[in-house]
Amino acid sequence: MTEPLHQDFRVPKGKRLRLKTTPTSATGPFADKDEAKLFTAECIKKIQNLQYKLFVEQKQSLLIVLQAPDAAGKDGVIRKVLGRVNPQGSTVHSFKVPTEIERSHDFLWRIHSCAPPAGQISIFNRSHYEDVLVVRVNNLVPKETWQRRYEHINAFEANLADAQTKIIKIYLHISRTEQLQRFKSRLDMPEKHWKLNVSDYSARDQYEDYRKAYEEVFARCNPDHAPWYVIPADNKWFRDCAVASLMLETLQSMNPQLPEPQVEVEEIRKLYDAELAESTQQ
Amino acid sequence: MTEPLHQDFRVPKGKRLRLKTTPTSATGPFADKDEAKLFTAECIKKIQNLQYKLFVEQKQSLLIVLQAPDAAGKDGVIRKVLGRVNPQGSTVHSFKVPTEIERSHDFLWRIHSCAPPAGQISIFNRSHYEDVLVVRVNNLVPKETWQRRYEHINAFEANLADAQTKIIKIYLHISRTEQLQRFKSRLDMPEKHWKLNVSDYSARDQYEDYRKAYEEVFARCNPDHAPWYVIPADNKWFRDCAVASLMLETLQSMNPQLPEPQVEVEEIRKLYDAELAESTQQ
Repeated sequence: MTEPLHQDFRVPKGKRLRLKTTPTSATGPFADKDEAKLFTAECIKKIQNLQYKLFVEQKQSLLIVLQAPDAAGKDGVIRKVLGRVNPQGSTVHSFKVPTEIERSHDFLWRIHSCAPPAGQISIFNRSHYEDVLVVRVNNLVPKETWQRRYEHINAFEANLADAQTKIIKIYLHISRTEQLQRFKSRLDMPEKHWKLNVSDYSARDQYEDYRKAYEEVFARCNPDHAPWYVIPADNKWFRDCAVASLMLETLQSMNPQLPEPQVEVEEIRKLYDAELAESTQQ
Repeated sequence: MTEPLHQDFRVPKGKRLRLKTTPTSATGPFADKDEAKLFTAECIKKIQNLQYKLFVEQKQSLLIVLQAPDAAGKDGVIRKVLGRVNPQGSTVHSFKVPTEIERSHDFLWRIHSCAPPAGQISIFNRSHYEDVLVVRVNNLVPKETWQRRYEHINAFEANLADAQTKIIKIYLHISRTEQLQRFKSRLDMPEKHWKLNVSDYSARDQYEDYRKAYEEVFARCNPDHAPWYVIPADNKWFRDCAVASLMLETLQSMNPQLPEPQVEVEEIRKLYDAELAESTQQ
């Protein structure tokens, strides 16, 4: 169970993906939850080893874009999978409602400044895609403005990819019933009560609008150098397996290499031995 | 074993701490390594719970400054303790040789931009203190310039503290023999060979200069709102215990509180139940 899942959640090119008929639930090859958790843990160990090499190699970088409806598990999958790497080589960027300064720039300005430098992993919790999702659904800018953004996004991602940034984009797909169950379960968890918000309702009224907006994103912004993956996320443990497996496969395909030592190891050894002997005598 | 260590590694005020006579090795109250590791794991669990509250409260922030000689374990303690929190609420900033843009500003400019916003934890791997350490030891600026920096640092940290940023500063203290042993052990680890560097030698020649420079830092920049802690770090598992315990005590003293819910929970529950029933019927 240490190989990647090799289950393909990639959004196909050339035909429109329908979220309504795309499964939100899956269990994969796992007999039970424990087996799945073991698989995720093993993937994470391998991810950590590859991240070390990526960090040291300092030539390539990895950008993981995470989008999902409320309660689909963005925070959970960051805490349990994506963020389980050495924090020195990884940053999570959460994009919320733009600040005044951010709004005074083009929509990609705040995003660009968070692109991962060589050797690093950036995880985007929400992203530039909100500018063709929440912005579109709520008519925050004129249609002709957000319509042009798909091409701007494609050009932006092509530039990153050209600079050795590997990009993967993950959509966590949950059913409306599961989403409602999760909202409801928050009512029984006092430590989540601060999260309760009437605007969750208006967002649910827009459920169909979001579905269409996501489908257009998948249709228009899905090149091979920045592919979308739709992960069935009703089942939390399967979601974690699928994301861990995808992250592992991605890092494996990047194949980062440790640099050659810059010194003659055996010569250094003699110097150390001498120094150590002297220091111990003191 | 779930209480903090309550062992005080705080650098005393009013008298000069001598690193030469300050212990580099300790085992604390632990019978063995396993007991110590269990203690660290329990601390981390509590740290994670408190971080959740800090993140949600969004009023206070925590800045942890980490300084140490090479091979003293900065990377290890970040990977195993300080960085073991939800990455959405925490960022590690590694300060290396300043870039051209950074050098064209005052020495605190690049540091200030990495100060933690409300709700967040910033971990500094090296920091503004390098500007009175490596800079001083290597005469990178005139003495009258670095001499003035102690006061600039104090004023800078006072401003952060005044804006609800809790600051703790950690020095990992290892013996020269242990340091040399660790340099040597890297020779037998091929995955560390890229790290080998002749400049490790010149740095060791400056061992005494660094000792003096650190002692002056501890004497001049150690107010109650930004205290220094000297952690015995020859023993890796004790180092982790001590740092975990210090981080836990610090978060406990900050006492972050979950905000009150902004809605009437029971009213929301009715709305959810109705919505859920409707969605299930569809």
